[in-house]
Amino acid sequence: MYLLNGEPGHYVDAADRGFQYGDGLFETIEVVEGRPLFLDRHLRRLALGCQRLLIPAPAVDLLAAEAAKLAKQAERAVLKIIVTRGSGGRGYRQPEPIQPTRLLSLHPYPDYPDIFQTDGIRARFCWHRLSINTALAGIKHLNRLEQILARAEWRDDDIQEGLMLDSEDRVVEGVMSNLFAVKAGQLYTPSLAGCGVAGIIRELVIGFARDIGVQLHEIPLDPVDVLAAEELFVTNSVIGIWPIKRLEQRVLAAGPLTRRMQDLLNQARAAEVQGCSVA
Amino acid sequence: MYLLNGEPGHYVDAADRGFQYGDGLFETIEVVEGRPLFLDRHLRRLALGCQRLLIPAPAVDLLAAEAAKLAKQAERAVLKIIVTRGSGGRGYRQPEPIQPTRLLSLHPYPDYPDIFQTDGIRARFCWHRLSINTALAGIKHLNRLEQILARAEWRDDDIQEGLMLDSEDRVVEGVMSNLFAVKAGQLYTPSLAGCGVAGIIRELVIGFARDIGVQLHEIPLDPVDVLAAEELFVTNSVIGIWPIKRLEQRVLAAGPLTRRMQDLLNQARAAEVQGCSVA
Repeated sequence: MYLLNGEPGHYVDAADRGFQYGDGLFETIEVVEGRPLFLDRHLRRLALGCQRLLIPAPAVDLLAAEAAKLAKQAERAVLKIIVTRGSGGRGYRQPEPIQPTRLLSLHPYPDYPDIFQTDGIRARFCWHRLSINTALAGIKHLNRLEQILARAEWRDDDIQEGLMLDSEDRVVEGVMSNLFAVKAGQLYTPSLAGCGVAGIIRELVIGFARDIGVQLHEIPLDPVDVLAAEELFVTNSVIGIWPIKRLEQRVLAAGPLTRRMQDLLNQARAAEVQGCSVA
Repeated sequence: MYLLNGEPGHYVDAADRGFQYGDGLFETIEVVEGRPLFLDRHLRRLALGCQRLLIPAPAVDLLAAEAAKLAKQAERAVLKIIVTRGSGGRGYRQPEPIQPTRLLSLHPYPDYPDIFQTDGIRARFCWHRLSINTALAGIKHLNRLEQILARAEWRDDDIQEGLMLDSEDRVVEGVMSNLFAVKAGQLYTPSLAGCGVAGIIRELVIGFARDIGVQLHEIPLDPVDVLAAEELFVTNSVIGIWPIKRLEQRVLAAGPLTRRMQDLLNQARAAEVQGCSVA
């Protein structure tokens, strides 16, 4: 089911700058019992992305109403919101005024087996690199060829995620997730100053760490540091938190801090479902 | 006028990966007297881009036939060809098999005044940087946010082009064009090993230089080198060759080598229009 600028519709004007240039942003949101989880945070990030790309952000109330309209039908699903700069302009030059396109769509929740949550997943390092661009770092924009090329590196269904390095060989994130490492009871997650997507679950985990007094370091990580971690986990809004049980040849177990974060995330999700969370 | 997968059509499935991720490529082609100029070269670059992005390239004969169908109506126009990875796949993971989308569209030729060709244009340096990614360098892919942000830096209609530097502060190209500099009778154009689009007119100019025995250097250029050039010109398939008559505070004149290249390009264009060129 799709809502295109508020109307049911599945087809986009080919002149839309989203199609012509990847000129826009998106959000991917878990829906449980008819509720889009952490919607406020997703809409905040979307608005921030619009600000960075100089796209006038659609009204939060409007997006929230349309999201609720789509989500209310679903027991469990994935809601995707795309906002583009709309049509017009001359080549790369943006139109004046900008009339953004918004597309909301509801998709089946992926059939990930439960053991990805419990036992963990296998991961690998990708060859393709994330390029460094501070203007685009952090936001969830529609220019995703780097992720697509990285994901095309493997077809082995036993491997669920690939970790990506930047052009200076620092680990940044997974193809579709953010990365956390545990060492000596402290949490590490790559800095996203140069590239990567600042995920909503990542933001929540950083908050949980603060809440429970676990030291959190947002710093560049070397592959060697990552391989030497005691615990590793990846996060995104659809998967939640998946422990990594194997990275290349290194075998790990889902450890206590990973479990703690999963518990805290489950509590936060439950509060969201009941509509009694604090944004 | 639009041809979507061979049929008249202006609307693209919102699930198309071109719209979802900028997962595709494009070509922008000048049409004169019903002929798409340098079509063979454009289709070769498109096929190379498909190869790099692991998209099965649509058959050259098919694209050429559709291009001819659209172009034959036009005295002078711009033909755009977009090829995407089509719909499907799970997230960034590409579908199997891939069924590419092709969209051809015809647009009015822009109303650039003749003095841009004769006297030249004003250009500036952009603040936004091109990020370095060898996997994407050279091809004309649909991830164009860097160009859009750079083009949004100025609204002064007296400035026609912005020169972009990469993240290591080397000059790479214009927002919509390639750059050439002349110094002591020799031609310089930035290397595109790390980023940038390898333009068709750029390729032609490099060939002309070889033909007439002018030394051509494809090397990294510093902004200082560019500002110190005796002649500067930019190229693309729609504008042809525009001299730069002013870059920031530096004033230049369209010099003899720029004129020579314009003449050679006009000869090549005329041969294309008459259908007697050698690809």
